[in-house]
Amino acid sequence: MAYTLAQIAQQLGGCLFGDGEVLIDQISTLERATAGQISFLTNSKYHAQLANTGASAVILGEADADATDLPRIISENPYAYFARVSALLNPSTEIKPGVHPAAVVSEGAQIDPSACICATAVIGAGAVIGAHTLIGEGCSIGENVVIGCHVRLYPRVVIYHDCVIGDNLIAHSGVVIGSDGFGIAMDEGRWLKIPQIGRVVIGRDVEIGANTTIDRGALDDTVIEDGVKLDNQIQIAHNVRIGAHTAIAGCVGIAGSTTIGKYCQIGGSAGILGHLKIADRVVISSFTLIGKSIREAGSYAAIYPFAKTDDWRKNAVHLRHLDEMAKRLKTLEQEMCLLKQESQKGNTE
Amino acid sequence: MAYTLAQIAQQLGGCLFGDGEVLIDQISTLERATAGQISFLTNSKYHAQLANTGASAVILGEADADATDLPRIISENPYAYFARVSALLNPSTEIKPGVHPAAVVSEGAQIDPSACICATAVIGAGAVIGAHTLIGEGCSIGENVVIGCHVRLYPRVVIYHDCVIGDNLIAHSGVVIGSDGFGIAMDEGRWLKIPQIGRVVIGRDVEIGANTTIDRGALDDTVIEDGVKLDNQIQIAHNVRIGAHTAIAGCVGIAGSTTIGKYCQIGGSAGILGHLKIADRVVISSFTLIGKSIREAGSYAAIYPFAKTDDWRKNAVHLRHLDEMAKRLKTLEQEMCLLKQESQKGNTE
Amino acid sequence: MAYTLAQIAQQLGGCLFGDGEVLIDQISTLERATAGQISFLTNSKYHAQLANTGASAVILGEADADATDLPRIISENPYAYFARVSALLNPSTEIKPGVHPAAVVSEGAQIDPSACICATAVIGAGAVIGAHTLIGEGCSIGENVVIGCHVRLYPRVVIYHDCVIGDNLIAHSGVVIGSDGFGIAMDEGRWLKIPQIGRVVIGRDVEIGANTTIDRGALDDTVIEDGVKLDNQIQIAHNVRIGAHTAIAGCVGIAGSTTIGKYCQIGGSAGILGHLKIADRVVISSFTLIGKSIREAGSYAAIYPFAKTDDWRKNAVHLRHLDEMAKRLKTLEQEMCLLKQESQKGNTE
Repeated sequence: MAYTLAQIAQQLGGCLFGDGEVLIDQISTLERATAGQISFLTNSKYHAQLANTGASAVILGEADADATDLPRIISENPYAYFARVSALLNPSTEIKPGVHPAAVVSEGAQIDPSACICATAVIGAGAVIGAHTLIGEGCSIGENVVIGCHVRLYPRVVIYHDCVIGDNLIAHSGVVIGSDGFGIAMDEGRWLKIPQIGRVVIGRDVEIGANTTIDRGALDDTVIEDGVKLDNQIQIAHNVRIGAHTAIAGCVGIAGSTTIGKYCQIGGSAGILGHLKIADRVVISSFTLIGKSIREAGSYAAIYPFAKTDDWRKNAVHLRHLDEMAKRLKTLEQEMCLLKQESQKGNTE
Repeated sequence: MAYTLAQIAQQLGGCLFGDGEVLIDQISTLERATAGQISFLTNSKYHAQLANTGASAVILGEADADATDLPRIISENPYAYFARVSALLNPSTEIKPGVHPAAVVSEGAQIDPSACICATAVIGAGAVIGAHTLIGEGCSIGENVVIGCHVRLYPRVVIYHDCVIGDNLIAHSGVVIGSDGFGIAMDEGRWLKIPQIGRVVIGRDVEIGANTTIDRGALDDTVIEDGVKLDNQIQIAHNVRIGAHTAIAGCVGIAGSTTIGKYCQIGGSAGILGHLKIADRVVISSFTLIGKSIREAGSYAAIYPFAKTDDWRKNAVHLRHLDEMAKRLKTLEQEMCLLKQESQKGNTE
Repeated sequence: MAYTLAQIAQQLGGCLFGDGEVLIDQISTLERATAGQISFLTNSKYHAQLANTGASAVILGEADADATDLPRIISENPYAYFARVSALLNPSTEIKPGVHPAAVVSEGAQIDPSACICATAVIGAGAVIGAHTLIGEGCSIGENVVIGCHVRLYPRVVIYHDCVIGDNLIAHSGVVIGSDGFGIAMDEGRWLKIPQIGRVVIGRDVEIGANTTIDRGALDDTVIEDGVKLDNQIQIAHNVRIGAHTAIAGCVGIAGSTTIGKYCQIGGSAGILGHLKIADRVVISSFTLIGKSIREAGSYAAIYPFAKTDDWRKNAVHLRHLDEMAKRLKTLEQEMCLLKQESQKGNTE
């Protein structure tokens, strides 16, 4: 699959400078690109790499339009343009319609003839599989699950009964959708299980990373809105709602019944406690625990800065005495105040 | 499945007030309940929702017995009562005894005739599967594993050879039980693997959340006692022992050879280092690392409080200088002491 | 399988003291060892256990050579010696060559006749499986994956297309290798997916714990060098490179494009941000976030010390006011300086 630079610009827009006939068959980094490849610059600090690149063409922002003589496309958003070029040059493999003989499809499941059910996948009774959807090897689709069109489930995704999956979902291997939420009640020294009778409902254009888990609701549903992007190994508890176009990095945990706004960005290994509300367009740093609702857009953090272990130990020991330090500081200020008064009195006497 | 309120009270206890003939077929939140549903109040701050609920009946604690005129059941522990009502109205689906033709059962495995082995499950030689136990699709049960009665393994659970599973276990999809512990010894610049020859032994009435992992012991066993409840994506290392009725929230990591007491509660994303002892009835906050043994029941925490990123940055920078701050504070106190002495001397002269 | 102590010393080296004819068939801890078992002492603080052990023989370091009269082997590195003895007494189960009839092998896959493909495993077109390699139940091996010799994949490992796996890999259940990295670009209010066209390339002698995930590269490859040991539930993002013989404990997250040196050790639940460089022989504590590159070998930490919740709360509140405290301290120092000058002036007048 190869395109001339002019063909790329024609399909994807942007301003073409230089030789439009150069043939492009792959995308690469400035550092590693070779002839026939296109690269991109999204940060002006990599100008040196641009000067030395082996790429046949580059994608640049407007500010860098003149930073090279190479054939180039100028775009307002060169990173998004790079994404589009890469998608053009690396289309998803086409799926082959049909049910593999080693798949197990229960009676009463409805599978669109354009869908592909791979070997060892199991489809429960009453499940509905939409057009052009791929159910990978070893996936387990529970009873009455409804899956939209153009969905791609990589091998070994599990979706429990009754969940609803919108169009274009991509779910990577090991994802579990609809497992029971962690609902228990203590009664006379034993935990009682609270049946989890809600569902997971997922909107359109969602992607879910490997080994991420999303629990079904206790009574109402757990909801993932349109365009949400989840990285690997995220845990989403029962009755969480994640607003449209929010992106969450790996290893984040979100506790039960928390609602997260739209267009939020949550850093890796962050955590959010239960029953909170997070506003739209909130940015949360990696490794930060959010323990209260956030009502305002903005950037929030709680990271303990690292140091050489000896320095860390010397400083961290005082964290157990901060309150005492604060009191001693206050005492000193009061004493200082008295001394200054006395001193002034002495001076004026 | 529907019951009158009187039938519910008869089966589950509690004091019935109002019309016992009202028919109940589902449980719901105060906010969303509709006719035919029962709801519950466990926190007096939701009285406003109680006033506006569409529920046909409610479950209340003794203090709230008169907070509504709706038909109601009064219970000492309304949250546990809610759990029981929900279980009554939402019984687990019955399992269909038998081995699916697409399951793979090794010779010499013993499967109770009342058990259900689903499609694509694989049962190893010498494994024993108890009565009324469900082995979900794609599960892998290793050689000589012994599984009790009324166990439910959701799809894609793996249990390695020789592990022992008590009655009533519920394990959600992606759980791995009995994988090798992380045992390595450095020898002349290379890591040697230490064979992990212990097992995992799990008591009765345990529940394990999706994608949680429990490693087998290095020499002795890893042990999960009766009634332990584990949420999703927890990592339990080799030779850990978790005491009965302890509940652990999602994403917690517990390092090797640590012993946790009974009736502990551990918050999400917390961690416990290896070779520690945690007493009974210890409560550990989310996001807290426990680096020393805890000998006393009580509540423990270590959370860095979050703030707007700019404020966090302004404050956090001083963490690298706390020791210096403490020293400067001490110096000031000494100087203050001298000045006060001088000042007093001056005053008395 | 049993050996005399003399046979063990002959095969594995070390200095034999006492009766070499004692027969050994298993290894155990000092505390639990019984007749016929060998134990080991790696820490002199366990001398009391040595005195009371039921073991028939022990492995000791040179400093402890005379700490018992039991038959014993003295080694420079008794922990590594223990690993070797355990491997001798507990050899891996032999694999049975052949493809199980319930496995699904695509046309064009090359499987060495000495390899074992278990039931319900699926092997993609163009995949190559090396000699003496075991592909466990339910594994999914993507198209054109190349797997070396003596590899052992436990049940339910997924390897996406085109990845390359070196000899002797051990991958535990639930491992996902080659899933898409978290590459997205915001464009007019929607996230665009960036195709992930790199691979995962894994060297020799690597071990990967249960439910660990390793994403494929965005453009270049994600690389795990020889001898790397990864515990359970680790997340390794796209384009990470992990240097040879580095060991990483459970639940660690490593963000995209970070390079980690050789012989590093990373504690449980630690995190490393993206685009960083970590030098060789860096040791990172559990629960520590590394937010900048580390250029020097050594030990680094960032752990908030835990306390009783009431004490923690009392102290932690001041973290939001550290900057103010630092300023107040500085003000006091200046005032003190002035007062001392005045006081001295007073004294000298």
